[in-house]
Amino acid sequence: MSKIIDIEIIDLRVPTSDTLQGSDPFHKKPNYSCVLTRINTDDGLLGLSVNFSAGAGNDWLAYGVRDLSRLILGRDLEEFIGDPISFYRLLIDHHQLRWLADGVARMAIGSILNALWDLWAKTENKPLWKLLVDLPPERIVQSIDWRYLRDAFTPEEALERLKNARSKRTAQEKHVIQKGVKAYSTAGWLGLTDQEILETIEEVRAQGLDCFKMKVGGGIDFDRKRMAFLRESIGDEALLMTDANQIWGVDEAIEYMKRLSEFRPYWIEEPTARDDVFGYKRIADGLRPFGIGVAAGEQVPSPVIFKQLLMQNAIQYCQIDATRLAGVQDVLAVILMADKFQIPVCPHGGGIGLCNMIVHYAIWDQICVSGPSRGQLVEYLYFLQDEVFLDPVSIRNGAYEIPTSGGWGLEMEEEFVREHTYPTGRVWQGREDSGSITFIA
Amino acid sequence: MSKIIDIEIIDLRVPTSDTLQGSDPFHKKPNYSCVLTRINTDDGLLGLSVNFSAGAGNDWLAYGVRDLSRLILGRDLEEFIGDPISFYRLLIDHHQLRWLADGVARMAIGSILNALWDLWAKTENKPLWKLLVDLPPERIVQSIDWRYLRDAFTPEEALERLKNARSKRTAQEKHVIQKGVKAYSTAGWLGLTDQEILETIEEVRAQGLDCFKMKVGGGIDFDRKRMAFLRESIGDEALLMTDANQIWGVDEAIEYMKRLSEFRPYWIEEPTARDDVFGYKRIADGLRPFGIGVAAGEQVPSPVIFKQLLMQNAIQYCQIDATRLAGVQDVLAVILMADKFQIPVCPHGGGIGLCNMIVHYAIWDQICVSGPSRGQLVEYLYFLQDEVFLDPVSIRNGAYEIPTSGGWGLEMEEEFVREHTYPTGRVWQGREDSGSITFIA
Repeated sequence: MSKIIDIEIIDLRVPTSDTLQGSDPFHKKPNYSCVLTRINTDDGLLGLSVNFSAGAGNDWLAYGVRDLSRLILGRDLEEFIGDPISFYRLLIDHHQLRWLADGVARMAIGSILNALWDLWAKTENKPLWKLLVDLPPERIVQSIDWRYLRDAFTPEEALERLKNARSKRTAQEKHVIQKGVKAYSTAGWLGLTDQEILETIEEVRAQGLDCFKMKVGGGIDFDRKRMAFLRESIGDEALLMTDANQIWGVDEAIEYMKRLSEFRPYWIEEPTARDDVFGYKRIADGLRPFGIGVAAGEQVPSPVIFKQLLMQNAIQYCQIDATRLAGVQDVLAVILMADKFQIPVCPHGGGIGLCNMIVHYAIWDQICVSGPSRGQLVEYLYFLQDEVFLDPVSIRNGAYEIPTSGGWGLEMEEEFVREHTYPTGRVWQGREDSGSITFIA
Repeated sequence: MSKIIDIEIIDLRVPTSDTLQGSDPFHKKPNYSCVLTRINTDDGLLGLSVNFSAGAGNDWLAYGVRDLSRLILGRDLEEFIGDPISFYRLLIDHHQLRWLADGVARMAIGSILNALWDLWAKTENKPLWKLLVDLPPERIVQSIDWRYLRDAFTPEEALERLKNARSKRTAQEKHVIQKGVKAYSTAGWLGLTDQEILETIEEVRAQGLDCFKMKVGGGIDFDRKRMAFLRESIGDEALLMTDANQIWGVDEAIEYMKRLSEFRPYWIEEPTARDDVFGYKRIADGLRPFGIGVAAGEQVPSPVIFKQLLMQNAIQYCQIDATRLAGVQDVLAVILMADKFQIPVCPHGGGIGLCNMIVHYAIWDQICVSGPSRGQLVEYLYFLQDEVFLDPVSIRNGAYEIPTSGGWGLEMEEEFVREHTYPTGRVWQGREDSGSITFIA
């Protein structure tokens, strides 16, 4: 038995606002941050998860995760492994906490569940993706909360699809392990100069990437100029994605993107509010004649919003995130729904730790669910890897290499943790304000 | 000038789980709670707001409100009064915090904004409703964030409608002041016995109420028995509403409610997930032939979800809440949209303080927006009033009387505050655990 005897919650922040890496029309000066959750068991296992945020508010998340951790302290890991849905319900259906709904609460719940899944994988000495790949379809289906999903997709249907896909599993596993999962990267952060963007392109090109994303919403003249520059830099063949981070209203998004269509954007990501299913649908319909798809997911607040986006064909790219929903079980549900509605899963990456986590989902999707041939692209961020993680993600020939260490592979350099702990770590000394809510863009 | 010099945030909880008042299928043992925000100015004004929760997690909200309060400390109240939308944007579009999305973050933002509106009303010695009624339509429209709403409703259209309604304002104000706004109450809390429900019905009937709500979702046999009992108790003429608090999936809701239709439920509230717009639409379509409308709002997480529910005729009763959204400005936007789509606004009440706040919105709606004749009903809760508030809400002839004290009228008895402060107050001594996250239903 592995008993949970101690849980540490650490608020880590990196002053990325110094360089404006990560900047977009809304998040003008983000400090990439995460809540690091460490669950210790009495037999020496360490379960890890991270939960990304943009700086201010990281402590809100940490506060929530710390409170939730009291619900699992003293429990046996085997209980979770034997019945993961009961732990999910313990958290998501809590008879008082449920009032707080999604956002911080669902994200904090995800932190706890993800760290438990990390422990589970480590008990089997497997990377998370391999744990998922080897789990019998019945156990995948039983781990999911179907309460609000059955009008789109039933557990029986999910089970049948997973079982059918299983016949190809061995071949697909071999294929994916050999090739990795195809990646793309953001080059055009809003706050960067053209020269800095060129350097970024060169950096990621050297790793074999041939798809690039840029932030839009800085004004149509600025965006047209920048997009022309990027299209010229990457060539006619490369895919060029755009991302507005919800800056527009519905009609505004359609009009704006028509004026960028000559530069052949592959998709527009988050053209409007995170939860506007009908708005997304109208935008998707409006931009279809121009060959522009709609992508969303990094802030989609619940599996129910994903369900609607998928059922209505309101998005053409499903950008699951590793830390927005209530952990592995929510994300598996979304991947299964995306498969049913034939929408490729293109996970949202970023710092800190998102890329390290999403690769596991992409691998599971491409081995056990939709197969590797649906044009999936996995977001990759070139910063906050080597200096942060003992096993940083690795790109070869434009694809993520397959992780081999146990669990998520989120073990961090102790020096990084020590120096970036907010607000006591060294990098925050003498500049505490720039990570806090009173730091105004 | 009134400068903000001090902000207090207090976590108040009442052990309502002792009596199971407030219980429903999800919130089995709620402890009605609120975050009390007190903004002090240098000229002696005190701005108040409350933010309701069900117990555990109230401290999460308090943590957030406390952090946000740093953004307005030292600011002049006149800045807010002159430009309320800039304060709204300061909070809702914060360049780092925005990542936390809705839920706790939007609720906490509402606490700050609502306390500022309280101060504004107090500078004019008016109840909140009267401040709103007297504001020129231009200033109402300018206070609203239209970014994501224009596909449903434009500021120009809102202005025109408000101006048109203005011709009837004087007559309607007189009418509403005389009659009050019609109320209804929940009698059938899930955890109460039949005898306790009878006593509750008698208590609220004595105040002239003739519409009653009951919780459903406790199992079809239990619910049919209870509903037959309630229908018999209240008579054939009285309206009987039902409330499932999101316990069902979409198809399940339709099937279940068909089996209750013989008892003539007036509406089914929250039949499924808070953000399932398409689900609500399907349920509304499925139950229309049975004369059952769909109501929702107390957990609708954003104006964008309200927009979709209203545009799609997915709800027939719009239950704005006083503390779920980002304060007055979000709620005014929803009331204006409901008017455009001809959906009656039936605010969600409850404890602590929700009823005291929603009555202001109902009055503004019925004087300045939709008029008093759309069949609006305002939820009323008979407990946590006299012992809590200096100016408790008051019901006469089945209607809320019109508040006359300044602002929201949320001034509390100091003894109540002292005794219910969590976890140090007297009522929590020796039973701290029952208010916390580890108190499991």
